[in-house]
Amino acid sequence: MKLATLRNGSRDGQLIVVSRDLSQAVLVPEIASTLQAALDNWQLIAPQLTAVYDQLNSGNHPHSFTFEQAQCESPLPRAFQWADGSAYVNHVELVRKARGAEIPESFWTDPLMYQGGSDDFIGPREDILLPSDEWGVDFEAEVAVITDDVPMGTRAEHAGSHIKLVMLVNDVSLRGLIPGELAKGFGFFQSKPASAFSPVAVTPDELSDHWQQNKLHLPLLSEYNDKPFGKPQAGEDMTFDFAQLIAHAAKSRNLGAGAIIGSGTVSNKQGTEHGSAIDEGGVGYSCIAEVRMIETIRDGQPTTPFMSFGDKVKIHMQDHQGQCIFGTIEQTVKQA
Amino acid sequence: MKLATLRNGSRDGQLIVVSRDLSQAVLVPEIASTLQAALDNWQLIAPQLTAVYDQLNSGNHPHSFTFEQAQCESPLPRAFQWADGSAYVNHVELVRKARGAEIPESFWTDPLMYQGGSDDFIGPREDILLPSDEWGVDFEAEVAVITDDVPMGTRAEHAGSHIKLVMLVNDVSLRGLIPGELAKGFGFFQSKPASAFSPVAVTPDELSDHWQQNKLHLPLLSEYNDKPFGKPQAGEDMTFDFAQLIAHAAKSRNLGAGAIIGSGTVSNKQGTEHGSAIDEGGVGYSCIAEVRMIETIRDGQPTTPFMSFGDKVKIHMQDHQGQCIFGTIEQTVKQA
Repeated sequence: MKLATLRNGSRDGQLIVVSRDLSQAVLVPEIASTLQAALDNWQLIAPQLTAVYDQLNSGNHPHSFTFEQAQCESPLPRAFQWADGSAYVNHVELVRKARGAEIPESFWTDPLMYQGGSDDFIGPREDILLPSDEWGVDFEAEVAVITDDVPMGTRAEHAGSHIKLVMLVNDVSLRGLIPGELAKGFGFFQSKPASAFSPVAVTPDELSDHWQQNKLHLPLLSEYNDKPFGKPQAGEDMTFDFAQLIAHAAKSRNLGAGAIIGSGTVSNKQGTEHGSAIDEGGVGYSCIAEVRMIETIRDGQPTTPFMSFGDKVKIHMQDHQGQCIFGTIEQTVKQA
Repeated sequence: MKLATLRNGSRDGQLIVVSRDLSQAVLVPEIASTLQAALDNWQLIAPQLTAVYDQLNSGNHPHSFTFEQAQCESPLPRAFQWADGSAYVNHVELVRKARGAEIPESFWTDPLMYQGGSDDFIGPREDILLPSDEWGVDFEAEVAVITDDVPMGTRAEHAGSHIKLVMLVNDVSLRGLIPGELAKGFGFFQSKPASAFSPVAVTPDELSDHWQQNKLHLPLLSEYNDKPFGKPQAGEDMTFDFAQLIAHAAKSRNLGAGAIIGSGTVSNKQGTEHGSAIDEGGVGYSCIAEVRMIETIRDGQPTTPFMSFGDKVKIHMQDHQGQCIFGTIEQTVKQA
């Protein structure tokens, strides 16, 4: 099943069911008016939404209309929980290596995760509005899941069943603000402004064989200013799967229905030390910071600048038939 | 005006208007069913709630009933944003001093703030359920405000007008998990489990002279296992006022209506280096960690243990007439 949220002037938007090929959609106010409302009562609501989805795909839903990704909010325009892991330890290792630091051994066994802000996500086709482009504006292409209620203490072996939806993320980051914030010891805040999510969230069954062991086994495609930038396999080099990330998040708290758990920046080693760019025949990267790290390690200093006003990023994923699964995140950095 | 949220089996509870003396309440489903719904449309809704409040206080509301604090959820049982500052730099200085570290000069000009989790707050009279009491369970008595929509880049001189409600917090902390998490560099996550808020949230005008310069000028009362533990003046030694904290939070993001901004642990220097306990004639402390820090600085090691299963904390605030303003947070740590 594929779901999206249509902009309708309200804070939580209007839940719609989207056809598998992303061409058609149906409003479902009689079932659930918002995605959060559906998630709040998922066991009851999901089968009803699935019935609409099946009818829509069969081409005979009487009230279907053309699906416009540009009219979408993030599937949850605001959420009660957004916790972003950093499961691709290659990404972490790269960032550290560039400044000459080793990563602690524990990073391979204990997930990194930060508590994100979730009160005001931006839409998948909305501009990234910021007061300054001198803060080291970067994108981070990631995969994320949405859970139902996860009781405190849920172990990884049981956490996978709580994954109800999968989507993509642009976890916008302000690299210039990160060192100062992390030095203060309280983690990210100003350096992690509003994130954007793919127009469409899909149930894991929709991903068929590509969803295995609580990982999404497809390349995550990033384009930067209309040029291919990254196509790493999201299923590779993911040190912690989504079940492990959920268990980590739920160690000392319940997670409420609609909790979003992110993978962190998708990053592949490609059998080399830290991977390589698409120009060099590699799978590239999912953020500018990694390219800069490679440049720093190789050349002593970075040459690729961070995003300036006018720069744009596209993030999406295709199945083996080249079919777009989640719709596309397409955003331009602009002055607020 | 005083507002609260009654437990009703739903995730967001039922908004009620509470009389000034906390004795009576009224359901207001025809105005707003939840506090979040009221905050989403505050400009329109607040005057209607105020009219009910006035009628309730005059003693002639036809549908009033006895207000039971024990039936309350936290005013927002779940929220879209919970950002907790650390505005009483004395608290920070103490924690650092105990381990022989100075605080950076910037801590006096740039607020510390962490992004909290907000999907599953506990009620003001609910137990603090945790799988273990070996994680250094501590309370932190704080003041918090709830804002309406705060546009990105709002400056401190304009941020005060966005404060719509004030309440108290128990920001439960797991001290034993903090060093490991902070060493990883991503801030708090597992070490900050669900927080609890006072039964009642009040509009700033309700605090009359006690609300000035975006600070709450009254002692914050903590009792630990039925003995007075802290009574520091929340208006003193608050290096950053709530307007400054809001401006800090909104530097690179919009804050959505219903955002909760916390003060951090209230802590007074009392003209001494780091304050003193109530037993010693001082105003005491708002968390166990500070007492342990004082003990460490004085005796070389802490003697007061953190909370064990069965230990209880009470947090509240009274006006100069001894009238309870926010109701009382009363919680016992128990095994999950």
